[in-house]
This record gives sequence, structure tokens and C-alpha cells, in this order.
Amino acid sequence: MVDIKHPYLLFLGDAADQLAAKTANGVRQWRPEWCLGQLRLPGCQADLGLTDLTVAQAAEMGAKTLIIGVANRGGRIGPAWQDIMIDALQAGMDIASGLHTKVADLPAVAEVAKLEGRSLFDVRHPTQAFEVADGVKRSGKRLLTVGTDCSVGKMFASLALEREMRARGLKARFRATGQTGILIAGGGVSVDAVVADFISGATEWLTPDNEPDHWDLVEGQGSLFHASFAGVSMGLLHGAQPDALVMCHEPGRPHMRGLPGYPLPDIGDCIALNERCARLTNPAARVIGIACNTSHLGQAGATDALKALEDAHGMPAVDPIRTGVGPIVDRLV
Amino acid sequence: MVDIKHPYLLFLGDAADQLAAKTANGVRQWRPEWCLGQLRLPGCQADLGLTDLTVAQAAEMGAKTLIIGVANRGGRIGPAWQDIMIDALQAGMDIASGLHTKVADLPAVAEVAKLEGRSLFDVRHPTQAFEVADGVKRSGKRLLTVGTDCSVGKMFASLALEREMRARGLKARFRATGQTGILIAGGGVSVDAVVADFISGATEWLTPDNEPDHWDLVEGQGSLFHASFAGVSMGLLHGAQPDALVMCHEPGRPHMRGLPGYPLPDIGDCIALNERCARLTNPAARVIGIACNTSHLGQAGATDALKALEDAHGMPAVDPIRTGVGPIVDRLV
Repeated sequence: MVDIKHPYLLFLGDAADQLAAKTANGVRQWRPEWCLGQLRLPGCQADLGLTDLTVAQAAEMGAKTLIIGVANRGGRIGPAWQDIMIDALQAGMDIASGLHTKVADLPAVAEVAKLEGRSLFDVRHPTQAFEVADGVKRSGKRLLTVGTDCSVGKMFASLALEREMRARGLKARFRATGQTGILIAGGGVSVDAVVADFISGATEWLTPDNEPDHWDLVEGQGSLFHASFAGVSMGLLHGAQPDALVMCHEPGRPHMRGLPGYPLPDIGDCIALNERCARLTNPAARVIGIACNTSHLGQAGATDALKALEDAHGMPAVDPIRTGVGPIVDRLV
Repeated sequence: MVDIKHPYLLFLGDAADQLAAKTANGVRQWRPEWCLGQLRLPGCQADLGLTDLTVAQAAEMGAKTLIIGVANRGGRIGPAWQDIMIDALQAGMDIASGLHTKVADLPAVAEVAKLEGRSLFDVRHPTQAFEVADGVKRSGKRLLTVGTDCSVGKMFASLALEREMRARGLKARFRATGQTGILIAGGGVSVDAVVADFISGATEWLTPDNEPDHWDLVEGQGSLFHASFAGVSMGLLHGAQPDALVMCHEPGRPHMRGLPGYPLPDIGDCIALNERCARLTNPAARVIGIACNTSHLGQAGATDALKALEDAHGMPAVDPIRTGVGPIVDRLV
């Protein structure tokens, strides 16, 4: 398993805006206790509200990993970024990057990492070999977040569930399947980047046997109704063997993300198809709640929307930010 | 697109038995007109009934590609095999291999290929970059073979349909998604070996716009009910945008291939789920027939089994070998 050591120094580079640093922002939001500070280059337009630190200052405070949680302009990692990476390696840190371009493919950086005995984690690019899924039932409990579409808050809902369950003293662990989640969890696997034959196998590996009352909270990807990515969603669904599913949704989208002409599915259909497919590897699988992103609605509109979903589908409907996920955890226990 | 030139010289190596050469056997069965002869090493226990040729003889007869259509013992490609490959390259042939181990990773072979300007096709390992699927409707017609399980004759059924349709003067082309199929078609893509995000995109690329009355006959993989590989099957189903589906089945299997404890799905359920999922990208998608492998049944048992399937599901049920696929083509046109 990828094992990214904390505490972190969050590198924001010369981010064009706050959105370009959204990966770092996610880490700061969900693991503030791991974040010693931020490192920004001249011209950086993002700010996480953390102390600005140099590599040397962060190293002195005990930083173990430099996190590259920012989009690089034009896909090229320039000399200014590489200098920071090399400084960090020489100061004793590993590097974990969510970039498409691999840090391990930068000869100068790779050479210093080797010389210093440090690790480079390109979290979008799985390096381990996986087995084909065997479908054998594993001990422990699993919850998978699924969705009507991509980018409807599956990672957010999974992390909110982890926080709520831990606050209640339950055994719960977020299991990351995408680059931001992996940096937040300190490990995981980018399932959409593994070889197709191993989607379910990688998911089984990610969520191994556990104590009977332990819940893995597995970050979902895509949607069974997304014409580009449903294969990934299906493999995740089978590999996770979920006891419980949470349906994530953002009301009001004009079409599926990236696919003009593809309307969003009916939530009821989406619940039914996910349950049907999930029951292949776990006959007890059941959608137990709906997590909605209502950020574009006013308070009254959000309340009405959640109420309507509860009435229509007979299960709690929450907005993890507005209402918290308490009602879903109530149902789980 | 992979473009493997024919005619072929089929290399059988030191195959332990006929089964070890089943890929070469498939090529010989479906493209006899491309097969000049076979090349066997001492100890080879397989025989395709072709003329035994040396590399020099095959080259003189105009062989364009040496086909490695045999399993190698222990996964290692030994010196005897490499010598033949090098001879073939120097005699002007390309090499196309269905091995797990990449021929392109053999330094001596790769060096000669480069020197001679020849191509090495490791057909299990896609090298091209694919786009994410866009789900946009393409012109032309498509038929996808799907299955209750892996290895139930999807490639065979697709090729039998191609042969029957061409014999009737219809425009039809087999589209290969696995290594044997690629060697038979002279091109294609191993969809189970692409990065998970691109399963549907690779399938769209494989089956581009075509004439309105042209049928792509797309080789299916896995099964929506196979706990290891359903992600691949789902991505293929969406990317192929099939107008027609043919359900492939082998009656009497004790469990899903490689998964003791997983019974085979009910065919009716399997038809319903495939249609339901396929309609995301092609609302007209419909299962139009059943292709059964009845090789383990007697003639009377086979006839009864096919009749029972026809009655239960209201569509033609054939065994491509015993009965031919004529009734399915009748329904298609």
C-alpha cells in the first residue's frame, strides 16, 4: 500500500487561482492536523490560510512529505518546481504528487530521490501489481459511495461519514480511490488508472479483511450511468462488496459531466441498478441514504429538495455540509 | 490501429499440447487463406495440419508476419524462440505475439527489429493512447456478443456471424478485443489491458463511423455477472453502442469461470441487465439471439437445449458449430 508519511508541507506552486490548488485544499480541509504549512512561488493566486514556510523551515518542524496538490499549467513541470522538489528531498522529505505528469519521470528529481533514499509517490499512477478479483467474501463491513454522475461529492460524503462515525466511537476508515483522496488518506489506489482487468482486484486489495464491526468507507468513482466511466464504477462496486451504499447527487445539472446530450438518470433507477449489480458480490447490499450537494440552492430550496428525496425513496437524504451525515450513520448502526 | 500484415507464418514453438497452441489454431481456423505454414521446434506436441516451413522457406513464399500464437512454458521466452524471431525479422517479417511477456522487451529481438525497420506487435499490450469515450452516436450498425460467463464462445460467435453475413453479401467486419481475435483480424485492441478510464473510449475508437448498412461485429469480453471482469464488460457495452446483442452461453457449467461459489446467472436476467445497461448509449439496443456452446451434449440433448432456450426467451438460439448462425442473421436483416 502507498504509505505517505505526515506531517505535510503543501506546495501550491504558482497556482493561477484557488481552484488550481483544490487537491491541496482538500488535504487541508480533511487533515488539518497533518498540514504544517504551505509553500507558494511568486505569482501564486491560491492561499489555504496556512503559514507560509520555506522547505528548510518545514523540515525543521518535522515535515515528512512535500505534497504537490496543485495543477501545473500546460502539463509541464518547470525548473522552479523541480528546484523545490530537490530541496525537499535533500531536506529529508518524500514527495507525493497528484499531477498527471509523473514526478518520477523527471530525471533530476528521480536522481536526487535515489541518492537520498527518498520515495516519490505519483498517486495517479499505480505502480503495484494487482491480482484479478476472486470475489471471496471478506470480513468486516464496507460502505461505498456511488453517484448519479461524476464529481457529485462521493469523496466528500465518504470523508464526512468517516468523521461522524469516528466521533461516535465507531471503527471506520476512509479508503481512497482517487488522487485527492489518496493524499488525504496517506494511501490508496487510483482505480481509474489501473489496467482494466484489475479494477475489482485493486478494490479488493484496498479493502482487505477486517474486524467484524469495522467499516471501510470506500470512495466511489464515476457512475453506472456515465457513458465514459461506468466500467470503473462497476468494477469498484463488485470489488468493494459493499454492505451499504450511499447515493451521491447534485440536483439541477443540465447533463452528465462532460457529456452534453446525456441527461442525468432518475435517482430511483440509479439506486435500483446499483443495488442489483452490487448484489452479485454481496447479496445484502442496500442503498441506505442519499448525499446531496445543494450548494447552489437557498436554505429553503435545499430543505425542500432533501425532503422530497426522503419521501420519494424512503431513506435519509442529507447534504454533508448543510445538515451533516448523522441521519445516514443513524441508519447504519 | 494495429495493422498486422499477412500472409502469416504460425510459430508453435515447443508447445506441450494442442491446447497450448490454441491462439494459432484460432488463426488457422478463421483465416486459413492467410496461413502459409507452421514452424515447430523439436518436442512440439501441437500440429495445425499446415505445411512445416523454415523461416527462409516462408519468407520466400512471401510471409509478412511471424505469429507467436502459443503459450510459453513458465512465462520466459528462451533463446531458441528468440533465434527464430531474429531470423524472421532478418528475413523481412514483422512479429505479432499474443504472449503475456512482451517481445518488445527482449533486448536482442528489439534491437534487430529496429535495425531492420520491422514492427513488433505485442497484441495483449495496447500501446496507443486512447481518448475518454464521448458517447456520441456513430453512423453504421454494431452487434456485440455478450455472455453469461467468460470463455463461452463470444469470439467464435462473432466470427461465425461475420462469415455468414459476408456469405450473404452483407457488409460486416469482425472487431477484435482480445489477443486471438486481434491476430485473426489483423488488428484491434485488447480492451482488458487498457487503463480503466479508457475502456469505453478504446471501444469507440475500435468501431468508428461507418456506412449506414455496415455492421461491426464486436467481440465481447467477460460478463456483467463475472465478479472479476464485469467492469471491462460494462465499458465495452457502452463504448460499442450496440444496436444488437447476441447472448453467448455454455449450459451446464458448475460455476463462473475461476470463481467457485459463483453460480451462472439466469439467462433471462443476463439478457435483461445487458439490455438495460446497453440502452444508456443506444436506446434501441436489443438481444436478438442466443449462441450456445453445446459441444458437451449429444445431438438430441443439444436440440432440446436450444429449443428450450428459444421457447423461454422468444428469440433464435443456435450453436454456431452444430447449427450455424443463420437464424440470428435472418433476424438481423
